Amino acid sequence: MHNPLERLDDLLIDGIKLWQRKDEFCFSIDAIILANFANCKPWHRYVDLGTGTGVIPLLLTTKGCQNIVGFELNPVTADLAKRNVIFNHCDDKITIVEGDYRHIEDKNFRGSFDGVLVNPPYQAAGSGIPSERSGRSLALHEVETTLEEVIVSAKQLLRYGGKLWMVHAAHRLTDIIAFLRKHNMEPKRLRMVHSASHKEARLVLVEAMYGGKASLRIEKPLVIYEDAKEGRYSEEVLKWYGR
Amino acid sequence: MHNPLERLDDLLIDGIKLWQRKDEFCFSIDAIILANFANCKPWHRYVDLGTGTGVIPLLLTTKGCQNIVGFELNPVTADLAKRNVIFNHCDDKITIVEGDYRHIEDKNFRGSFDGVLVNPPYQAAGSGIPSERSGRSLALHEVETTLEEVIVSAKQLLRYGGKLWMVHAAHRLTDIIAFLRKHNMEPKRLRMVHSASHKEARLVLVEAMYGGKASLRIEKPLVIYEDAKEGRYSEEVLKWYGR
Repeated sequence: MHNPLERLDDLLIDGIKLWQRKDEFCFSIDAIILANFANCKPWHRYVDLGTGTGVIPLLLTTKGCQNIVGFELNPVTADLAKRNVIFNHCDDKITIVEGDYRHIEDKNFRGSFDGVLVNPPYQAAGSGIPSERSGRSLALHEVETTLEEVIVSAKQLLRYGGKLWMVHAAHRLTDIIAFLRKHNMEPKRLRMVHSASHKEARLVLVEAMYGGKASLRIEKPLVIYEDAKEGRYSEEVLKWYGR
Repeated sequence: MHNPLERLDDLLIDGIKLWQRKDEFCFSIDAIILANFANCKPWHRYVDLGTGTGVIPLLLTTKGCQNIVGFELNPVTADLAKRNVIFNHCDDKITIVEGDYRHIEDKNFRGSFDGVLVNPPYQAAGSGIPSERSGRSLALHEVETTLEEVIVSAKQLLRYGGKLWMVHAAHRLTDIIAFLRKHNMEPKRLRMVHSASHKEARLVLVEAMYGGKASLRIEKPLVIYEDAKEGRYSEEVLKWYGR
């Protein structure tokens, strides 16, 4: 029976299709940007923190990854993610776990991952907190999870030398770097994301290595729209969609 | 009498000419990039740390600044800077002080500046230290001055709420942000400098405010060469030269 709140969205990448709910947070291009920033290796084990409807794990399978876990706190969204994994025939590669990634008891998880991906809430706790604790506000604001908790959780899941890939709001970069350093997660790659080449960065992509040595590469800027007025994507973004 | 080691270079900006020495560090485009990043106000007081032959103070006068101090440790270079100030008729606006900006006793200097500019050595102390302590190596390596000392010195010279503008190697950004935070100098603006738009950032421009609140803007990337092969500057750089 079809739930009228649900809709089937086409990701337009490798035939992936996603069930999402109109009243919950839907994936944005940020998830696709993050999945493309992570230089994953097929034989490595990855975890996506706050996976939503499972878009990042599904994208990682298109890069050859075969061992991916996705954590999702919201039970409605976690259920959609589980169904999306089955719908896209990836249940042998992706495990969706409904639960809080800040409190992981399972010893099979702690210290076991080669890489963590996370697209956390962008707004700092206390800055314009919404009145309702809806699924959508949880996904956008640090109502439940702070930036430091995200970094600490990622570190607990990583093996020593493992990598964290995060997309976040550009204006939080100082906090991101300060918390990473504090927790022995050394920034190794940065990439600024600009909607157009003449505009400020809206997002920042960060790669950090647990126990890594100090040395940072700042990559060429990622420009999303070639022509922002006409909404035409840049060559790089079009390539993700196989155009 | 003309010293055969000296040569007169034309800055090609507002008719500024500079005496430099072939055997010492000569100014590079980095100084011009930094002077253009600083949004100076004519009625404010500025100091340039490690001014070399005085190129940054001279550039600030072209933006209307009338109260600028330049510190230079190397006596040969400080002498050239003093002569360059007179040669360009700026001795009513610029004071060159031969000395170590890390040990400033003069109470007229401490806490008195609205802004500090610094183009410090890019290489970390201990990383490929040159065998000779020549003027050129002092300017390129942290033989004498570490990044943290630069930031502490800048803070001592600034009034509360004053700004530091620094150009540095992109791979040092993590250290820069960590030291700024440690010393209550909050990063407010960042700009990545790429030799071409498809290349990694070589330099980073940082604005920090003494006692500022956390909020960072990452500006549009600064691209130096439109066409790196042909050595043609980008429109933005050409504008600095009034083309």
